[in-house]
Order: sequence, then structure tokens, then C-alpha cells
Amino acid sequence: MKKKHLSFSEIMAFDQKYRATFINSLGGFKSICLIGTKSNAGLSNLAIFSSIIHIGANPPLMAFIVRPDSAERHTLENILETNFFTLNHVNQAILKNAHQTSARYPREVSEFDAVKLSEEYNNNFFAPFVKESFVQMGLQFREKIDLKINGTIMIIGEIKQVIILESCLGGDGFVDLELAGTLTCSGLDSYHSTTQIGRLTYAKPSTWPTEVLY
Amino acid sequence: MKKKHLSFSEIMAFDQKYRATFINSLGGFKSICLIGTKSNAGLSNLAIFSSIIHIGANPPLMAFIVRPDSAERHTLENILETNFFTLNHVNQAILKNAHQTSARYPREVSEFDAVKLSEEYNNNFFAPFVKESFVQMGLQFREKIDLKINGTIMIIGEIKQVIILESCLGGDGFVDLELAGTLTCSGLDSYHSTTQIGRLTYAKPSTWPTEVLY
Repeated sequence: MKKKHLSFSEIMAFDQKYRATFINSLGGFKSICLIGTKSNAGLSNLAIFSSIIHIGANPPLMAFIVRPDSAERHTLENILETNFFTLNHVNQAILKNAHQTSARYPREVSEFDAVKLSEEYNNNFFAPFVKESFVQMGLQFREKIDLKINGTIMIIGEIKQVIILESCLGGDGFVDLELAGTLTCSGLDSYHSTTQIGRLTYAKPSTWPTEVLY
Repeated sequence: MKKKHLSFSEIMAFDQKYRATFINSLGGFKSICLIGTKSNAGLSNLAIFSSIIHIGANPPLMAFIVRPDSAERHTLENILETNFFTLNHVNQAILKNAHQTSARYPREVSEFDAVKLSEEYNNNFFAPFVKESFVQMGLQFREKIDLKINGTIMIIGEIKQVIILESCLGGDGFVDLELAGTLTCSGLDSYHSTTQIGRLTYAKPSTWPTEVLY
């Protein structure tokens, strides 16, 4: 199969939109979540993000990247104002609704209303969850890191509560995301469902991994 | 469908291994890449990472998270010593080989040899690529960010060259990762192939997204 080589100068010479599509594809399949927030004035906001990353389990920390000049800035403003946000996995039934949150709605419009998703409040948590999601997390803001290299911002939050489909939680703590219908994305706009190949045994120098059923 | 609620104190009371498995699952589907490096002394290293994240397209930047006390530390040492690394997507033919790189091999062992993957050098780039991968990137180290919150480290690199299957590159810059056989993972050890649902149109407040073929 023929491989194509692209140099730095060839990549930089791409049209801006072409390059954005290209580079966004190269990162591989990405986690997508709807981030739910609310301003102190009570206006809710919902936005789709594909830059969610696991930072650690003790304490449980997740992070995401924000581009401050984009439709994502309302999310950032609400988190810095109130300290709370939710992460909600996207399944096929709500895919188009989720994608539609990336439209540039005015500040006074709640995307929950605009894209027809249900705002849900659990256990007195300040930020709104997406009722139609089967994996929901409530997080408290912990740290903002300015990435001076390109003006983006990383937000780190601590998981304060989790709501998941009971049937998804395995005996060893593994959450079956396929059972929850969680989707993944590639590039800027391509969405994918998954098929599990298997879980592999913990790697040791002296053995070769095999598939395991827990 | 019944949902289960887990509070922060319940999560923190989990057994450590159970919590690691649980929290690692919650981030959703993750990008997996083999990171190839080489020391100045000429010893190559290869390690699987599931914390790859897109930082920006202009310039093209990618980042990943390293846990310095793990098998990943040789990767970190080589990058800080030499400034170069490669990211190589994982396909099903090399999945077990890729997973096996996470075993704690001694410093003097090259994982390329130990897991039977082919070290490839392209266009005088210092760091080794994985020949069996169909999406390969060569990166130059740009920034190290210490996440004091839990002692992990974020490494940001700039994409200096890309080698991909020619047939994967679409007319608008989109890279068809399914054609390249790129896999995704969830949790610590679960690997998945994907099936494209579709690409959705750019979201605008006045319209509803539809699927498009580019």
C-alpha cells in the first residue's frame, strides 16, 4: 500500500481549513462529551467538546482544551464564574442534537432549549446534566492552565459524582461504554460507533497478552 | 433503564485498582498511539499511550500526558534528551504487539525488538517510526508542563512530518482512519474498532445538521 509523505512546509502551505481538517484527523479517535454549565444568573449552557482527557484517578481528574475565541467561550466563562461543570457522553439518539450545540448561539440562548436536550439537576449539583446521556459526571473546577504556545486553555476538574447506567458497571470497575451507546469522533465532524475487539491482560515482559473476560 | 449514582466519597472509598479502572473508563473512547523515541546513545524505545490530545492546527500541535513513575518514563527521558518523538496509530494487526510495549522492560531493551515491531527511519528524522503503522507523525518537542495537581506531565510537540496511506487522505484534508485501521481504546485495556455513522454539516443556529459525503 502506497504511503504519502508530507513535510512541515507542505503542511503549513495547506489552506487553513484543509489543514485544520487534516491535523484534527491525525490525533486518532477522540472522546466526545457535552459540557453542561450554568451562569450565576441562572442561564444554562451546553457545548460539545472532543478534547477530553484523563489526568488521574486519585483524585479523579479530567481535563479538556478550550479555544477562547470560539463558541466554547461561554462554557469557559461559566466554569470560571461558578466552579462547576458536567461531562455527559454522547450516544446515537442524541448525536445531531449534540453536534448542533457547536453552532454560535447568542449568550442569552440556552443550548438545552435550542437543540432540544433535557436539563437535569442531580443531588443539588449546581451545573446541569444531560438527561438523555447514560454516562454523566459532575466536576468541580480545579486548575486553569494557559497554553501560551497557541493561546488555548486547559481546564482541569475533579469528578465529584458519577451517574451511569447500572448495567454498564462491571465487577472490576470497568464501564462498558458500548452498552451505554457512547460514540467517538474523528476529525472535526465524523462520528463513529465502536465494536469491542477485546480486553488484553496486564503486560509483563515474560508473557504475551491474551484476551480476557472479566 | 436504571441509573446508578456514585458520590465522591463512594468513589474515593473504592479499592485503588477498581477506581483506576473505573475512572479510566469514564473519559470515553481514547486515541491510542505508539510513541517512538531514541536516546542519544542510540537505544530506541517504544511505548503505547492513550492520552493523545489535539492542541491546535496552526502550528500543528499534539500533546500527551506522562506518568513519570511508570513504564512511560523512558519515553519522557528520551524526548527531553533529544527533542524528537514519533506518534504511530495502532491497527488490529499490531494490537497485541502495541499493548505489550506497556510491560516494564529494562532500560537497555528496545521494545521494537521485544514486541517484534519494525523500527523505521524516514527522511533523516531522528526518532524511529513504526513501519507497520499506517498513520505516522514525526514531532519536535516544544513544551513540558508540570501538572502539580497530581505530578503528571504534559508534553507538547509540533508535527514536523506526516506519513499516511495515500488512499486515506480525502479531498478536504480529512483522513479516513477506518481505512487506516486505526483502533481506539476505553479504560485501561479494552480495544475497539469503529464504524462510521457519518460526517455532519457545520453547525449554524438557523439549520439542523445533516449527514454529508465529501
